[in-house]
Amino acid sequence: MKRQRFALTPGEPAGIGPDLCLLLAAHAQPYPLIAITNRDLLAERAAQLGVAVTLLPVSAEAFPDVPADAGSLYVWDTPLQATVVPGQLDKANAAFVLDTLTRAGQGCLDGHFAGMITAPVHKGVINESGIAFSGHTEFLADLTHTEQVVMMLATRGLRVALVTTHLPLRDVADAITEERLERVTRILHADLVSKFGIANPRILVCGLNPHAGEGGHLGREEIDIIEPTLARLRSEGMDLRGPLPADTLFTPKYLEHCDAVLAMYHDQGLPVLKYKGFGAAVNVTLGLPIIRTSVDHGTALDLAGTGKIDTGSLQVALETAYQMAETRL
Amino acid sequence: MKRQRFALTPGEPAGIGPDLCLLLAAHAQPYPLIAITNRDLLAERAAQLGVAVTLLPVSAEAFPDVPADAGSLYVWDTPLQATVVPGQLDKANAAFVLDTLTRAGQGCLDGHFAGMITAPVHKGVINESGIAFSGHTEFLADLTHTEQVVMMLATRGLRVALVTTHLPLRDVADAITEERLERVTRILHADLVSKFGIANPRILVCGLNPHAGEGGHLGREEIDIIEPTLARLRSEGMDLRGPLPADTLFTPKYLEHCDAVLAMYHDQGLPVLKYKGFGAAVNVTLGLPIIRTSVDHGTALDLAGTGKIDTGSLQVALETAYQMAETRL
Repeated sequence: MKRQRFALTPGEPAGIGPDLCLLLAAHAQPYPLIAITNRDLLAERAAQLGVAVTLLPVSAEAFPDVPADAGSLYVWDTPLQATVVPGQLDKANAAFVLDTLTRAGQGCLDGHFAGMITAPVHKGVINESGIAFSGHTEFLADLTHTEQVVMMLATRGLRVALVTTHLPLRDVADAITEERLERVTRILHADLVSKFGIANPRILVCGLNPHAGEGGHLGREEIDIIEPTLARLRSEGMDLRGPLPADTLFTPKYLEHCDAVLAMYHDQGLPVLKYKGFGAAVNVTLGLPIIRTSVDHGTALDLAGTGKIDTGSLQVALETAYQMAETRL
Repeated sequence: MKRQRFALTPGEPAGIGPDLCLLLAAHAQPYPLIAITNRDLLAERAAQLGVAVTLLPVSAEAFPDVPADAGSLYVWDTPLQATVVPGQLDKANAAFVLDTLTRAGQGCLDGHFAGMITAPVHKGVINESGIAFSGHTEFLADLTHTEQVVMMLATRGLRVALVTTHLPLRDVADAITEERLERVTRILHADLVSKFGIANPRILVCGLNPHAGEGGHLGREEIDIIEPTLARLRSEGMDLRGPLPADTLFTPKYLEHCDAVLAMYHDQGLPVLKYKGFGAAVNVTLGLPIIRTSVDHGTALDLAGTGKIDTGSLQVALETAYQMAETRL
């Protein structure tokens, strides 16, 4: 195991992100893990939760090279603009949230961090503050000058990547172009090789229409767009199976022989993933020059400060980032 | 347990339907179950499979009132037009397939059968024969003069009904109208009461768009169509929750308190259902004046005559029909 460190951004300060970091610190991590957030915020939240955590200050001049002990947490102190009240959004702190992401992302680019793990931000309050923000993924794509990224969710035993993500359903069919499908498939394939260490990834591709179009009776996108694109990529040696009907693809017969499923749209691929991986799913951004994983849940404002939360998804996000970094090295 | 009998249609004769009936006959059923198919076909297939089954002839003049013993199967002999070769479709037998469905459906209407259970037909070969046929469901809707039916799939612990079924994805959004959603919801609610014995069914309704539209940012159908329709139906006393994001709805927090999920389209609702209920899911047609359940798999032409098949889905289809009939009485 190489010596490398990771950045953890707790995201929205009024949400459960700080709580998750504090609960996580009860157990030692295999690598130095640095929470990029406000130190006082963590101290106050720890008191509120009744959690005893030693906060260990770090700075960009002196990042640690050994993991913190159980009960301790490295913190890269980042200034807040306003005092945080758990559960209450405050647009004054939007810039703080983005500062933590910039520190983490730039630290990855500069080689200080082997990867970054993000807890949820609240898009609405950042936009209300006057900063255009459509999500972690887009922010990190900008920061790293990446043109196209791919959203993949994973849980133990299943990975699902998406060709389209946050689009109204009526816009999905037109968004499935040969160009987009090819770009997304190439990124998925390349990252399964380079970041997951799979020499020849086996990818199952969903059709767009029910029954994958049933030979053209239920839509022609499979025939006109998906099949030709897959055929072209197969000729380069990619192991792509499909287009397959989404309602029968998620069964052992297919899944036992696959490294990832490529779904055409959000609600085609994610319900099964989240059903199977309930509380233990991780969101991985593919296509970035850095490693970034994320929890798959929201800010849960109503639970901040209550302690009634589950670190399952964060733990899977950490494990996944560690594994990806080990594979890449 | 009341004395009542059921009809079983093995569907496409070159597929695994006959095999399923024969394997099923190894165990006694709680009710008289009558296979409506060709007697010689069953005898030949039994010989091919090496299965010893006593075929007990029945006729419309003398339906049995007691279950067959284990190892025996009631058969209502129905003439074939051509000899059947397992695995080889023959359009000459399309009329035979429809005859068996008419016998079963009309027998239900006439009170001879408490319900019918169907094994898969092959739509393509029936249409090739010159008979327009879009599926069991539509055929039975015509036969019973039913204007609107609803497709529901069920497995132990989960029922999923669909607002739209076999539509190209690009046509789904426009098909989600207040009128259709209201009709489908009423049928689902009414049949959960009358055929499943649930006094006040709790129904979870999916949004159409990812994240159920996220307050209009990802599509407006939730705000413009789904919410007003649900509000109107709730005012009549229906217990409807939603519209909810499909990717988080299929988790214990929601499912533990629900009798059925109403999905807006095929690939939003069925992947989870078939993942969860793999090999043991049943298709139930709601809205018909008769009880009809079906296996959730296809004709599996390549497996006909091999014996390498699983009767799991057929058994759930039978159990479901029995339970529905017991509830209804």
